[in-house]
Amino acid sequence: MNTIFKNAKILKTDHAKHNFSIVEGSLAVEGNTIKHVGEVPADFKAERTIDCEGNLIMPGFKNAHTHTAMTFLRSFADDMPLQDWLFNQVFPREGQLVEDDIYWLDILGIMEYLTSGITSNFDMYFFPPKNAKASVDCGFRTVQTSGLNNFGGSIEVVEENYNIVNEMSDLSSFIIGFHAEYTTSKELMEGIAGLAQKYKSPCFMHNSETELEVKECIERWGKTPTELTEELGMYEYGGGGYHCVWMSDHDFEIFKKRDMYAVTNPGSNTKLASGIAPIKRYLDEGINLAIGTDGPASNNCLDMFREMFLMTGLAKIKERDAACVPAEEVLYAATAGGARCMGLADCDCIEEGKKADLIMIDLMQPNMQPENNTIKNIVYSGSKQNVALTMVDGKVLYEAGKFDIGFDPREIYAKANAIIGRMK
Amino acid sequence: MNTIFKNAKILKTDHAKHNFSIVEGSLAVEGNTIKHVGEVPADFKAERTIDCEGNLIMPGFKNAHTHTAMTFLRSFADDMPLQDWLFNQVFPREGQLVEDDIYWLDILGIMEYLTSGITSNFDMYFFPPKNAKASVDCGFRTVQTSGLNNFGGSIEVVEENYNIVNEMSDLSSFIIGFHAEYTTSKELMEGIAGLAQKYKSPCFMHNSETELEVKECIERWGKTPTELTEELGMYEYGGGGYHCVWMSDHDFEIFKKRDMYAVTNPGSNTKLASGIAPIKRYLDEGINLAIGTDGPASNNCLDMFREMFLMTGLAKIKERDAACVPAEEVLYAATAGGARCMGLADCDCIEEGKKADLIMIDLMQPNMQPENNTIKNIVYSGSKQNVALTMVDGKVLYEAGKFDIGFDPREIYAKANAIIGRMK
Repeated sequence: MNTIFKNAKILKTDHAKHNFSIVEGSLAVEGNTIKHVGEVPADFKAERTIDCEGNLIMPGFKNAHTHTAMTFLRSFADDMPLQDWLFNQVFPREGQLVEDDIYWLDILGIMEYLTSGITSNFDMYFFPPKNAKASVDCGFRTVQTSGLNNFGGSIEVVEENYNIVNEMSDLSSFIIGFHAEYTTSKELMEGIAGLAQKYKSPCFMHNSETELEVKECIERWGKTPTELTEELGMYEYGGGGYHCVWMSDHDFEIFKKRDMYAVTNPGSNTKLASGIAPIKRYLDEGINLAIGTDGPASNNCLDMFREMFLMTGLAKIKERDAACVPAEEVLYAATAGGARCMGLADCDCIEEGKKADLIMIDLMQPNMQPENNTIKNIVYSGSKQNVALTMVDGKVLYEAGKFDIGFDPREIYAKANAIIGRMK
Repeated sequence: MNTIFKNAKILKTDHAKHNFSIVEGSLAVEGNTIKHVGEVPADFKAERTIDCEGNLIMPGFKNAHTHTAMTFLRSFADDMPLQDWLFNQVFPREGQLVEDDIYWLDILGIMEYLTSGITSNFDMYFFPPKNAKASVDCGFRTVQTSGLNNFGGSIEVVEENYNIVNEMSDLSSFIIGFHAEYTTSKELMEGIAGLAQKYKSPCFMHNSETELEVKECIERWGKTPTELTEELGMYEYGGGGYHCVWMSDHDFEIFKKRDMYAVTNPGSNTKLASGIAPIKRYLDEGINLAIGTDGPASNNCLDMFREMFLMTGLAKIKERDAACVPAEEVLYAATAGGARCMGLADCDCIEEGKKADLIMIDLMQPNMQPENNTIKNIVYSGSKQNVALTMVDGKVLYEAGKFDIGFDPREIYAKANAIIGRMK
């Protein structure tokens, strides 16, 4: 199916400068690919022409770290100390999940992504092939990684999942990873490093999320989580860390040397009181940035607009500098940065030949007016309410508040309520 | 006009505990007043019955500090140092505003309030009667205060505006106030204190927003802004401060003794790098809290959902305690706290006899599912996208994305673009 977007403003990405420009015109999607940007030839045939009425077509947001299926624990146990929350509330319920639950809980999360203009996720959770299947069935693009740790999984299963998910669909892929240093034995970490090298894959883990995590790692190994995992050979083909809040000078050097990604999760770091990531320093040192929502149990929402505001806002507070971490860098991290972090370089911007993972932003809303600066408006005053349409792989999955993913929303809500209801 | 809301969940407020409960049933509005809650007598006559389909009716949010008409400077100059922003960007353009501009810029802000479920604002800006007129013409409830300082206004004009706005409409009122200690002479502050006493009015100002402001005040007077203004006799009838970030022990005592309100503005404090307000301590000491968005030049959006998440999230970061400032306290501050701060005790909750300033929250959205805890969902994952309807004074002003305020949105956007366009 081909689609033309006419009367659009189109957001173009300047990768060198991490900046953007806006052109007015039309855009054509052929199958799952952006075919023409700016002008569409008169003989281009499309089943559907969408009149954007001056609204903005831009790349979809990439959610570069999440645990999507944790939707069942959203608002289940909040405003409590981290350890109590994790050990007494989260883990006992996660232990009751069966594989089929994951499928429905994942779809609930995907629906929320679509409302926020998110077109792909980098997901770590139980049963990656089941997660991938949920995404593929909805038409949503997903990158899975393993959450391997001492309490579940094995190197063999990670390798099996790597192959299953990578071969499942063009919409699904798998990057090597594991949960975190503080939950995982050295033997397993060595196995993960071996897989990353065997498959020439980047490698990801939760890294330096809390001060305690780093302190205990240094006590155990005499090294930070970044130092330890780099020495184990995990980053021969790049990769990165989720959270990356408490980083040493040497950690920054390693991230730079290995061309790694710091995936920031400001909503989760805020709600769990983990701290504020050193975003200004990442930018100053030219380290790659991407943004993730983290899971809905810790955030509690899956909203890239909130994350974008927090990424720059928290940095401004931390540095006591209202000028640091400009909106353009934030929007770059939320789109191109995330795509490249997730191995989706063909989804990183609006350009001929790129995948049609794009969204329409309604500029005719009061929070987008006047149009002094559309980039700043998106980052500082944008909201889910502005997402008029979300297209993944050339297919419109969300438009004017309605989903086209093959499931009735009320059925999905009922499933999610039944799953957590079973555990109460 | 009378309205019945049927098949609703209704949020009821427990003022003693700062908590909420939800009852299922119907609600009737007679004219501008809530007439029945829970059950509506069969003989109640209504021109319209709205089927809520299980969605939530709750009190509208109260925006307890803003400069609404600054919409023209939204995204005009961001990511720059505070002084440069204020003196080189904001002040020179504000100097070019004429009274008629305020009217249109205010309506743009009111539209945004309605999309976020905000039913009244506590506004400080030039030409309060013009601001009040814009609100009244839209059917929106407003409380105006004066922004008097050394660069504009006089005690006589403040008094005149006090009477004009209080007498204009049931939708408009005026509370005595002025800009801030750092912009205002002692003579003017004494005049303001005199007015507060003459009219038995609470008194408000920007208070302890930045560390520098407090330091310089102490250098000038040997006192904090709170101490100075209290000694001048401003708080004989209560009042409070906007921002209240950098407070001394004695300041807390004064706020407590005078039953004052700390109006927190976390979005603005974040974006302008002003700091994090001591919300946990306000709660621990039983000091009244309300929430404001501040103006759209500094925030840049007028969204109570963002403010609510930030109020608790930033406190959690500051205290390094994920358990502090629970969602219930945040929602109380955003509704009843704001109403009482603004002298709108008859708009503070859903109860028979209260004004019908209420909103409908769409729970059938993925970010509100599963329904583990609707209060936590509103505060932690709620979004403008969930605002299905906003009613002020018994009249629906916003519903399903459409405004009913007597103005065409495109006309308002054009006016706002023309006003800032004139100054570029």
